[in-house]
Formats: sequence, structure tokens, C-alpha cells
Amino acid sequence: MRPQVVGVLSRSQGAFDEILDASDLIVELMGGLDPARDYVLEAMRAGRHVVTANKQLLAHHGEELWATAREHGVQLRFEGAVAGVVPVIRVIQESLAGSHVERIHGIVNGTTNYILSEMAGRGLSYEAALADAQRLGYAEADPTDDVTGRDAAAKMAILARLAFDTPVHIDQVRYEGIEHITPADLAYARDLGLGLKLIGTAERVDGGLSVRVHPAFLYGGHPLASVHGPYNAVTVESPAITEITMSGPGAGGPQTATAVLGDVISAMIPPASTPETTHSLPIVEDVTSAFYIRMEVADRPGVLAQIAEVLGLQGASIKTLVQHGLGDDARLAMTVHPILESRLFAALRLIGRLDFMRSEPRAIRVIEEEFV
Amino acid sequence: MRPQVVGVLSRSQGAFDEILDASDLIVELMGGLDPARDYVLEAMRAGRHVVTANKQLLAHHGEELWATAREHGVQLRFEGAVAGVVPVIRVIQESLAGSHVERIHGIVNGTTNYILSEMAGRGLSYEAALADAQRLGYAEADPTDDVTGRDAAAKMAILARLAFDTPVHIDQVRYEGIEHITPADLAYARDLGLGLKLIGTAERVDGGLSVRVHPAFLYGGHPLASVHGPYNAVTVESPAITEITMSGPGAGGPQTATAVLGDVISAMIPPASTPETTHSLPIVEDVTSAFYIRMEVADRPGVLAQIAEVLGLQGASIKTLVQHGLGDDARLAMTVHPILESRLFAALRLIGRLDFMRSEPRAIRVIEEEFV
Repeated sequence: MRPQVVGVLSRSQGAFDEILDASDLIVELMGGLDPARDYVLEAMRAGRHVVTANKQLLAHHGEELWATAREHGVQLRFEGAVAGVVPVIRVIQESLAGSHVERIHGIVNGTTNYILSEMAGRGLSYEAALADAQRLGYAEADPTDDVTGRDAAAKMAILARLAFDTPVHIDQVRYEGIEHITPADLAYARDLGLGLKLIGTAERVDGGLSVRVHPAFLYGGHPLASVHGPYNAVTVESPAITEITMSGPGAGGPQTATAVLGDVISAMIPPASTPETTHSLPIVEDVTSAFYIRMEVADRPGVLAQIAEVLGLQGASIKTLVQHGLGDDARLAMTVHPILESRLFAALRLIGRLDFMRSEPRAIRVIEEEFV
Repeated sequence: MRPQVVGVLSRSQGAFDEILDASDLIVELMGGLDPARDYVLEAMRAGRHVVTANKQLLAHHGEELWATAREHGVQLRFEGAVAGVVPVIRVIQESLAGSHVERIHGIVNGTTNYILSEMAGRGLSYEAALADAQRLGYAEADPTDDVTGRDAAAKMAILARLAFDTPVHIDQVRYEGIEHITPADLAYARDLGLGLKLIGTAERVDGGLSVRVHPAFLYGGHPLASVHGPYNAVTVESPAITEITMSGPGAGGPQTATAVLGDVISAMIPPASTPETTHSLPIVEDVTSAFYIRMEVADRPGVLAQIAEVLGLQGASIKTLVQHGLGDDARLAMTVHPILESRLFAALRLIGRLDFMRSEPRAIRVIEEEFV
């Protein structure tokens, strides 16, 4: 079964009734409360699954929408509403369905995390970092919802509802923003090894539930302290599991699209059916890697030249080199640029036979900081 | 619908046929290949859903098991088989179903990550760190499967199969362990700000797939570099999403049980139905928090005493205090132990009215390093 787009409704095209008639599933990406709420309700009442990324809609009208989904036996999926493609909704709703959640901490607004990261990393003022974020498209022309914490508050209302099984409306979430954070606050954090983040919290307190958003210092070892730039991350704490953390890019176009697509596929395929393999990729045995190499050698004239020659013949290129010790107890530590493993190991076998070597060369791979 | 345990099969009790007859779903936690494989196949052929945490079974016989599940229209769930409660299986199979995965890096063996963390943090030898891990129950009496990388290889075979949609048998996974890692390797890592981890990798290479496990240095900024102790973490890279990382405690009893329970619940409830709220926890407005406070004051005799008195009357207890500057341009920076927010804010309002204050006091919350 391949999904097909049967119609698109925008300001300038499409008729909702015709699209509804032709569909099995409606994706709502219009945003805002009205008319999104009416369309979503009408679609579910007509027996259609709905996928949405509309956090304000769920933070305001979640109970009505979820009740309608249950009543009509349809799925209402909304992974894209919180933390983009970071699968916090699915994990809280499904993976942790069996556990008693005690607390959630989240960095759920990428704009403010980017601004705070720039203030911390480059010493920028709030205003300068905000202007940068706007120039790079991480902040909108009117950044009010982001910088005041209101956007994060909507997301925390949704997470709290799911994790604590209790209705939470956005108006019940207290929030403070980052508008008053100064470079001095970040300097303080840096001096003490702390992170300063806009943190959303939902936690059990005295038999009740507190849901709030505010700037907070985090100890360096906290899983959220190392989340930089426009990233989102959520930590879920529970006695049975200690805590799990999920992190990744916040909502951008491709990220939200991936979350929406994951929801569409989940709504359409049977649950937990591992599909037949569609590929049969050959398994590759020999791959390229950077390496760290350590050798114990007798420090005699020409040793380094011979080692470098063998490496060079196999195509290995030395990136850094450090020599420790002297005489019969010298050690060489080097890193080499990425090379086919088979070639490097061939070079090391040859080097291992040279008469000045005092033990087998040691090689450990190095994973460079290269993300896709 | 409440799950009920209808029978338990162990060496000393239970009859498989009777349990099968009375069940809707079978949980397999016996481990090993035989007779686990026969029981799981028989259960699925009899139309029962199966939940398992048996990584070796899936890494050896996955294709046969998944095909049987598809053929008989039952669910075969196995979140507990990789990284315990860290929901990597569900996320790769469901959330990222719409995305083209380029690479997976994982710390999928908690025993070896604990040993490497202890060697790095305390300068222990491999042998001493292994003995510690055995004493604390992080390593088994026979640690071969863990320290040689074979356990991680089974898990990477499963992740690679799911992410790259191609059959992967454990025998196709190359692996090296940590038995030869020395304190000198970790000293090198520390000096250069690198992490040294046992890393499982599955990645597209030249139109093929490489799946392997080996020790590797990671740059400090890599999401896996800061994963310490018996934790597991998996990073999935894809062009559309950049990368997402999931981390948490590896397989322990409660963690695996939580993963199994999440699978059982997922198999029994309709997909993506957000249940009715079962609680109505009161929303708590006033919570306890530690604070950082900054004040600009005229530095006159008695200033600190007055501030301390007001804080003390509200029950705030100063933890650290630093004074910068002199005369009319003095600044106080302090942290206070956790206190009800309303009481701290009341104290700050009073302090703000004292005549030596040169601006409003600034307060930012501090999240202590306290996990459940």
C-alpha cells in the first residue's frame, strides 16, 4: 500500500469536503486554532485518521480531540507537535506506557536554545543573538512566542498530559522567557561549569503536578547541559528506568516532515510488523577510518623516516605526531587521516617487523565529528 | 482490558502447551537459541503475539521469526533486546520509517562502557575495572560475550536490519573488544579531550552496508562522548533529520522489564489511541527550587548582614557567596539551597526595597544533579 496525496487545501486552492471524501487520512499543517480545530474534528467524525503538528491546537483542545478520536475509533497522531523528529510523543505514549514517570525536563524550543548557546559561546548580548537567529531563520520576525516561553509551555502541556495521565491546558503552565538573561548570567554559568537553558519541567509535587517553563542553570553532568544550538532534548525520569534522554534537531521543515511521515506510515501499516527486507545490500568488510596509532620504539636515527615511508607507501597520511621519551624507551603517538582499514593494517604489519620496534603497534579508530 | 499472567514456564514448573492455550501473548525471557526459537515459532503459528528480549535469537534467526509473524498476522516485539528501555527499536522501526538512514553509532553494551568509564575516570587497569564491574553486578562471572564485543555485535545486527532494510546475520558483523585497551590509551584520550568508547557502527558504504563493533576515539562534541557508566546510547544519522540521539540505562532488571511491559501494552491496546485521563492531579503553582541570585549593591557596612537576615526570615539558606567589586559598584552572587519559590520571591521583593540596592535582584533557578 503506497500513500497517495488526493488533495491539498490552502488559502488559494482545494475544497475540504472533496478532499475528505477521497481520503483515508488527513494531515493538518495549517496551524492556529481556527479553523484547524473544526477541520480535525470533522475529519475524525468522518472516520479519518489525522496527523497534525499543531501544538497550540493540542495544548488548548487536546481533551476534546482525543475523546473524538477514541469515540470514532481513529488515530490522532502528533509527533511533529513537540521536538520535531525527536520521538518524545511516541516514547512517552508507547514505550513508557508501563512506567510511573516522576519528572520530565525538556529543551523544547530550538530558537531560545540557539540564542542562549550563542550568548554563551560568543559572549553576545540577548539582542545580538536574537538578531543572528532571525537572520539564520531560527527565529521568526515576531519571536514573542518563542522568547517568552509560550511556545515551550504549549509543548510541556502536551508532554505532561501524556506522561502523567491528567488533563493539562496551556493556561495551567507557568512560563518565563529568556528576554532578561544577560551575558553576566552566562559568564557565571561558564565559570562554574554550568549550562544555562530554557527548561520545561513537568513533575509530581506533593500529590499534584507542576508544569512550568523558565531559564535554569544545569550542572555540567546533566544530560541537557550539553545540548547546544537549535537542538531539542527531553529527559524522562522514572524510578524503574532512572532516566532516558532523547535529543536531536528541533522543528525545521525536513524534521517536521519526517515526524509527520513517520506518523502517516504508523497509521497505515499494521503495528510492529517488521516488513520483509526490500534491499539486500552487500555487507562491506573493509571501510575507511581515521586512526590513532601508538608505537614503542628504540629511538635511533632514521626510525621515524622508515615508519613514515611504510605508512606513505600504503597511502596513510600522518595528521599529528608526538614523541615521548628517549633512547630505548621512546614512544610515538600519531593520528592518521582516514584510510581503508586493510591498507593501514597492512602497513602496521610491515612496521611491526622493523627491528627497532619494541612491541606491536597499537591502533584505535577515531570517529571524526562529521554528521550527515 | 487488564493483562493477566496465565502461566509461567521455567525449568522447574509449567507446561508450554497449557500456557499457550490459555494465552493471547507470550513473553519469552528464557534466552539462548534453543528451545527459545521453537517456542517463539510455535506461539506465533498458534496466532499469539510474542514479546522477547532475546538479542541472540533475533541476530541468528530474525528473518525466519519476522516472516512467521507476518505470515500469521501477529506482532513480534523486541524493544528489550537492544539498549534496554532506551526505545531504539521502536524509534527506528516506527518514527523513522519515513527516512533514509545513513549511519547508526551506538554504545550498546553497558558492561564495557562501565569498564572504560572507570578506566578513564579513576585510572584503573582493564583487569581492575572488570573486577569492579563484576563485584557491582555490571559484568557477569564469564564476561566474554561483553568484553569481546560479541554482545554488541548481536545488537548492531538487529539495528542494521531494521534501519537499512537488509538481512544482517550476526556472523556478518565484525567485532573487536576492549580487552587490549590500556590506561595509556585513555590518558591519550583525556589529554586531547576525546572519549574512548566501544562503538557499534552500521553505515552505508559504497552501495553496501558495513556493520561492525570496535573501540574508537570520539571527539568531545560527539553525542556519544559524554555517555558514561553502564549507560547505552544510540545516534541515528539521516540527511533529513541530521541526527537524533537516545540514551539511558542499559539492560538491568527493571529497565528490561519496563521495555517488555511497554511492548506488551503496545501489542494489546489499539495504536495511537490517547486513553482517557485516569487521574486529575491538581496543578501545583508553588514549587521548591535552588536559586542563583545576583545583586548590585553599594558596599557599605552591614549590607550583607541585612540581606542575610531577610533571606533567613523567609527560610532561605545561602550555599555559596561571592562578592565582586568595591564601594558603589559591588556585586553579590550567591546560590541558595532549595526553597519554596514564593518564599524566595517574597524575600527578594523585600531586599529590592533596601536603600543600598542599586538594581532589582536577579534570580535564576538551579537544577541540581538529582535523578530519581
